[in-house]
Amino acid sequence: MLVVKVGGGEGIPIDAVCQDVRDLTQQGERLILVHGASHETNVLSEALGKPPRFVTSVSGMQSRYTDRETLMLFCMAYVGKLNKLFVERLQQLGVNAVGLCGADGRSMEGTRKAAIKVVEDGKRRVLRDDFTGRVERVNMGLLTLLLDNGYTPVLCPPALSYESEIINVDGDRAAAVLAVACKAETLVMLSNVPGLLRDLDDTDSLVRCVERDQLDAAMDIAQGRMKKKVMGAREALEGGVGTVILGDARLEQPIRRALQGCGTVLR
Amino acid sequence: MLVVKVGGGEGIPIDAVCQDVRDLTQQGERLILVHGASHETNVLSEALGKPPRFVTSVSGMQSRYTDRETLMLFCMAYVGKLNKLFVERLQQLGVNAVGLCGADGRSMEGTRKAAIKVVEDGKRRVLRDDFTGRVERVNMGLLTLLLDNGYTPVLCPPALSYESEIINVDGDRAAAVLAVACKAETLVMLSNVPGLLRDLDDTDSLVRCVERDQLDAAMDIAQGRMKKKVMGAREALEGGVGTVILGDARLEQPIRRALQGCGTVLR
Repeated sequence: MLVVKVGGGEGIPIDAVCQDVRDLTQQGERLILVHGASHETNVLSEALGKPPRFVTSVSGMQSRYTDRETLMLFCMAYVGKLNKLFVERLQQLGVNAVGLCGADGRSMEGTRKAAIKVVEDGKRRVLRDDFTGRVERVNMGLLTLLLDNGYTPVLCPPALSYESEIINVDGDRAAAVLAVACKAETLVMLSNVPGLLRDLDDTDSLVRCVERDQLDAAMDIAQGRMKKKVMGAREALEGGVGTVILGDARLEQPIRRALQGCGTVLR
Repeated sequence: MLVVKVGGGEGIPIDAVCQDVRDLTQQGERLILVHGASHETNVLSEALGKPPRFVTSVSGMQSRYTDRETLMLFCMAYVGKLNKLFVERLQQLGVNAVGLCGADGRSMEGTRKAAIKVVEDGKRRVLRDDFTGRVERVNMGLLTLLLDNGYTPVLCPPALSYESEIINVDGDRAAAVLAVACKAETLVMLSNVPGLLRDLDDTDSLVRCVERDQLDAAMDIAQGRMKKKVMGAREALEGGVGTVILGDARLEQPIRRALQGCGTVLR
């Protein structure tokens, strides 16, 4: 069982990912694809005159401030646009893809944060109209049903809260929870960087391997978006996933390159 | 087996429809919900500075001109927004809804019109960059799999062409093809009018019943959007569906009122 997460940053090529998914599923690999759409969400938000607003939690994590209106834009970019582009391309390649967000069949459920404490202009504030949360539970029944019948699930945020509200969740950490739930041997996380870099401006500073006892050090190195990927990797490894690979989505055959160890291997 | 189509016109209340779906599925009814989102698509198109453009075919049918960019807006409004609002509300009511468009698992497939002949300003033109078509085939395997396992499918356009392109299709006629494919006894089509009216300005002019041999006369009466509904009704009846009811989505308990005969009953 293989879970592949493709980031939603700028310049992520859908085509190469889909071709790898086709080859791997043709070889009999059970595979679930998870994708993001953060760049598309930003583009849509800007175009609609509602520029994205990012908030920083007191623990230093950045997230998209998601009121109900933003949540709808989020759904449109993730489920309406990117998910359908992945499904269409996979179908063209002969993969019988089924796109689902976490609300569909409660495929990904979790807790909505009732209030988030953020720091803005140096001041602490509490936001209560934010629809964000984190995935804690996966409906493996539905995913197994699809996989057993020849369908390839293509999952994306949003998820559903236990109170059945649509919530914005981090896709990397959702993929980690999913990889644990489906007992994946491997979780591949592709984005528009080569992997975990010691120095963001120097691709030669790639960290090639992180052993489990080095995860704290890896967290210290990671910056920005990469922090959530390393957190996701840690959650996956602690949950029993054998290997997590942070790979480069922009390569030819990006999934297979990652599986060959191209990127940062955490194990 | 019951297929319910809810229109995507302005002022369609999601909530009342979802409550009826909950009550009916709790009573053991096998039900598939199909919905539109034409008004949402118009709103989004306007907001993005790309106002909708409607074209009239040489046979007099109006349809949305759907180039690839419009197709993405269409997907965002239908799949990203409306479909997720239906799924969320149904989940809140305890219905395990799964939202799918026609591309997902090839749930609704059909022919893309290679070129459409339209009349603009009195002149005939051929449009070749239009991604529209019609649903001809339904993946009942997937829908049965979901229904048999306690999920309620919530379907919407777009569909997928046989060449695996996403295509804009008419939701009413898609619902008719679906009703035939799943051997539904009844197809309910709800919109923001009381049913087939002899005079659009006079709700007292409602046609209460149309027998099969009166369908040509009904087609003559129908105007605008209602033409496609009557065409869909005819296709459903000819395909073996027992009864088609054109009902008012704006009533309390709109599905149950339609099933009680409130609206136009075609049989």
